[in-house]
Amino acid sequence: MKNTLTGCSVEESMRLLGGRWRLLLVSYLLDGPKRFSDLRRDMPAISQRMLTLDLRALEDAGLLRRTVYPTSPIKVEYALTEDGERMRPVVEVMREFGLWLKARPPGQPKVKA
Amino acid sequence: MKNTLTGCSVEESMRLLGGRWRLLLVSYLLDGPKRFSDLRRDMPAISQRMLTLDLRALEDAGLLRRTVYPTSPIKVEYALTEDGERMRPVVEVMREFGLWLKARPPGQPKVKA
Repeated sequence: MKNTLTGCSVEESMRLLGGRWRLLLVSYLLDGPKRFSDLRRDMPAISQRMLTLDLRALEDAGLLRRTVYPTSPIKVEYALTEDGERMRPVVEVMREFGLWLKARPPGQPKVKA
Repeated sequence: MKNTLTGCSVEESMRLLGGRWRLLLVSYLLDGPKRFSDLRRDMPAISQRMLTLDLRALEDAGLLRRTVYPTSPIKVEYALTEDGERMRPVVEVMREFGLWLKARPPGQPKVKA
């Protein structure tokens, strides 16, 4: 039972955060609000369409707020909500695991996509 | 610079663990060794082919060991390696975040795939 509960909670998290880029995106937003162009620069490998979809999914989940400033040209800013800040420990643990993966001595099995 | 390092470590983790099912799979293996059929039962929504690919990716990364017992019929068991145990805190944080997501009061934004 515990196992089932554990399992489906992990699944719920991964449904939202399991995409290749979402937690990376969140890691940049944890530093403060960003514009779309900032995020494009931070993550040049992600397509514009995918970035848009990922931002929208986080916004729909209430973890991110999109603010449009009526300047000329219009400025659009993305910031984590208070709920979104709850992803900080998730990003931290992924960062630590990634550092460990990369620090393994040569000859260790390699990560494939 | 810190940001770049943080970013690419998160990316390294997500490259390995970011699929929809991999951390869920790991969460079951953290309970002990499993046979392929056990995992199929634990995760009925994943296809046989995808489960095979996910197991192989974790094996190639040195986080999982596949053992073939020469019984009749042959028994194949999957177990986390010592390195694989390092994914425990990752699963824990995802489980906690998932529990929080599911416990949000009704009317809160919903998670979409």
